[in-house]
Amino acid sequence: MEFGFVDTKNMSLLTDLYELTMAQVYFNEGMNGIATFDFFARKLKNRSYLVSAGLEQLLYYLEHVKFSDEDIAFLKETGKFSDDFLNYLKDFRFSGDLYAVEEGEFLFENEPFIRLEAPIIEAQIVETFLINTMQLSILVATKAMRCHSVAENTSLVDFGLRRAHGTDAGMKAARSAYIGGFAGTSNVLAAKAFGVPAFGTMAHSFILAHESEEEAFEHFAKSYPQNAILLVDTFDTIEGVKHAIETVKKLGMPTFKGVRLDSGDIEVLSKEARKLLDEAGFKDATIIASGGLNEYKIETLLKSGAPIDGWGVGTELVVSADVPYLDCAYKLVEYDGKPKMKFSSGKMTLPGRKQIFRSYKDGKIERDTIALYDEKIKGTPLLKPFMRDGKVISSLPSLEVIREKAIENFERLPEELKDIRKESGLQPTLSPKLTQLMESIQKEYGAMK
Amino acid sequence: MEFGFVDTKNMSLLTDLYELTMAQVYFNEGMNGIATFDFFARKLKNRSYLVSAGLEQLLYYLEHVKFSDEDIAFLKETGKFSDDFLNYLKDFRFSGDLYAVEEGEFLFENEPFIRLEAPIIEAQIVETFLINTMQLSILVATKAMRCHSVAENTSLVDFGLRRAHGTDAGMKAARSAYIGGFAGTSNVLAAKAFGVPAFGTMAHSFILAHESEEEAFEHFAKSYPQNAILLVDTFDTIEGVKHAIETVKKLGMPTFKGVRLDSGDIEVLSKEARKLLDEAGFKDATIIASGGLNEYKIETLLKSGAPIDGWGVGTELVVSADVPYLDCAYKLVEYDGKPKMKFSSGKMTLPGRKQIFRSYKDGKIERDTIALYDEKIKGTPLLKPFMRDGKVISSLPSLEVIREKAIENFERLPEELKDIRKESGLQPTLSPKLTQLMESIQKEYGAMK
Repeated sequence: MEFGFVDTKNMSLLTDLYELTMAQVYFNEGMNGIATFDFFARKLKNRSYLVSAGLEQLLYYLEHVKFSDEDIAFLKETGKFSDDFLNYLKDFRFSGDLYAVEEGEFLFENEPFIRLEAPIIEAQIVETFLINTMQLSILVATKAMRCHSVAENTSLVDFGLRRAHGTDAGMKAARSAYIGGFAGTSNVLAAKAFGVPAFGTMAHSFILAHESEEEAFEHFAKSYPQNAILLVDTFDTIEGVKHAIETVKKLGMPTFKGVRLDSGDIEVLSKEARKLLDEAGFKDATIIASGGLNEYKIETLLKSGAPIDGWGVGTELVVSADVPYLDCAYKLVEYDGKPKMKFSSGKMTLPGRKQIFRSYKDGKIERDTIALYDEKIKGTPLLKPFMRDGKVISSLPSLEVIREKAIENFERLPEELKDIRKESGLQPTLSPKLTQLMESIQKEYGAMK
Repeated sequence: MEFGFVDTKNMSLLTDLYELTMAQVYFNEGMNGIATFDFFARKLKNRSYLVSAGLEQLLYYLEHVKFSDEDIAFLKETGKFSDDFLNYLKDFRFSGDLYAVEEGEFLFENEPFIRLEAPIIEAQIVETFLINTMQLSILVATKAMRCHSVAENTSLVDFGLRRAHGTDAGMKAARSAYIGGFAGTSNVLAAKAFGVPAFGTMAHSFILAHESEEEAFEHFAKSYPQNAILLVDTFDTIEGVKHAIETVKKLGMPTFKGVRLDSGDIEVLSKEARKLLDEAGFKDATIIASGGLNEYKIETLLKSGAPIDGWGVGTELVVSADVPYLDCAYKLVEYDGKPKMKFSSGKMTLPGRKQIFRSYKDGKIERDTIALYDEKIKGTPLLKPFMRDGKVISSLPSLEVIREKAIENFERLPEELKDIRKESGLQPTLSPKLTQLMESIQKEYGAMK
């Protein structure tokens, strides 16, 4: 490890110190019964649904996590761990079971994305990575789907790598954006890693490096006659559109792919640009908009009749700017066969091994019920087994399939939840047995007190 | 590459597609003159300063970036690049010069953190990573310093790894938090990579896994008699404090390190906890607070007299929740000896190779002047050479030294800029020659038009 870049073959130490100190205590006490943890979001804020994503990365981690000799040596140096425990870590593997909702599925508050069942030391050590990878993936898939939901028949491309929070976020954002209905990404490594289509236009620096805008357009168009999207706002957008038209005519280019607007009043400028392009006979030339976009701006521009064909959405997508974190948690709900429940003020948890049952009416979600896993409840169970004894047991769908399902799932939402201004989601029902279990634990706790 | 984890030895493809297509055009046109790019923030929003961070990671990248055979093969598959250009990429290395302000330095709007001078193809290809790594590092170092500035004599620990945007963000956040005055991190891998002190307490799950809170406390205290910080809010905070006291007394522990409060009315609960601890003779037992903290809450709690000794700050720190992105840019300011300037609406740039001169009065920053690099201006130049011909030429300070400097630099701020509620920073002055240059380019552009 140099300069703090994460060695992605070995992320065991990418965990909070307390996971390891707690593990040491469990080890000393001989406590390593099966624990069930749920990963869920407590409350939705400015969101009427969450789109699940990140499962594939999580499964990869769980199958590979182990402590190298170097890791063990570092832990020994800290003086916080016994030799016996460090020996245990040498052979550490994740051996648990994992239930999850499929990537691209839509969930609401208190519904577990993940139910993990494993010896408590293992379940504890993997906590930090699990939350880290799932939260970001869900945030961006959800933000992307919100953009997609207002984009009508236009297309969306992730332009966010540069403003993502680090390298890993840039990768996960590209993948999650695709799940959320985006057509592709500017991120070349994500294109290679995930097979997501890569797109790009040109930068202002490219224009400025030339003697004139016309010269820059000519150079680009000569190298990319089929695919040149010319950036027209470096000096004056309308002049830029005119220069683009002149260039295409002058070179006799086979295709005029389009222009990109990155600043100014996009509504006015896109209408004027469309008029100029049409008058010049380039009805197929597209207009791409970018620059500080989000779902609200896209919706407003399309409603105003702005003739935009495609959007480059960057910063606000990849950092999920209006909701940059989820109120999410990974909570112990059962240990050694006994249901568990936290009472902390404002953070009470639902106990027990659970399942989510979803029922539909006329193709739309009618009701979600959070129930105990073995309860008979009307509806389709959403949590499915993905890992048994530390091994992935389901073949995972392609990203393409996940994306298609996510888009279909959006259509199954109750109409009012499709509104990007709706600030909360569907309220899941708690099943009779779950309610009963909560009451009995609360009673027991009251008696204890 | 599997599952999209970034191979940190080879991040050349972690770039926007247009960087490579523009590079192809430059290559085709034989254009590869020296370009100067500035990386800067346009406007500060809810911030009265920005703390520089991320330089060490950037220099590492620049020294190592190259295209592997696998990368070249992938680019060939896309059909967007000629064999000649791909051959050029095989030998690609960054060969430029880099000037930067030191990590831990404070900057304001339009002041370049980085001035990079390199053949334009190189300068363009490294753009995406440069912004990606610098933005996040600056965001978190700044947020951390804001927390530090209100923390009086209490200590701060980064608890944010789980809510950071991906693995790399968790690492960079831990490093930047330390630069911003934090005492350490919960992130074990960051402790190993950067030598930042690691801290941790215990989780609610640990309490719940046991038959009772008392049993959980006893188990933990037996393994960590010197270092047990007991989490007291799982059921009822005040009862929890009493159980903690009983445990320590029962075990006759040599030290009672402290308790952690993670929910409820922290002001009221911390005062009550302090009283109970003092009455029991544990005046040295510390009280740690956590749970949705930020600089505003810390300031309010300390002003209300809450007897908190330390803070675990997580989510809001690592995602810089109130300002999750910077309005920052990497802009061409000179090409082949000619100053360049962008005119886009609301995004005008400062042309030319520049320097920032800072003057002090009575130990406080009096004035910043953004000038041309060779101008004679009163003050200390802030941009220093770190890389020549692609090689790092300065020995980099330790993280410890960077942190100390950052804390000293905070003291040099004008008093009004120390207020966390101040929404904008110092306004840098533009030098006479820079102003003159801008006017002449604007005039030339007007004539061109």
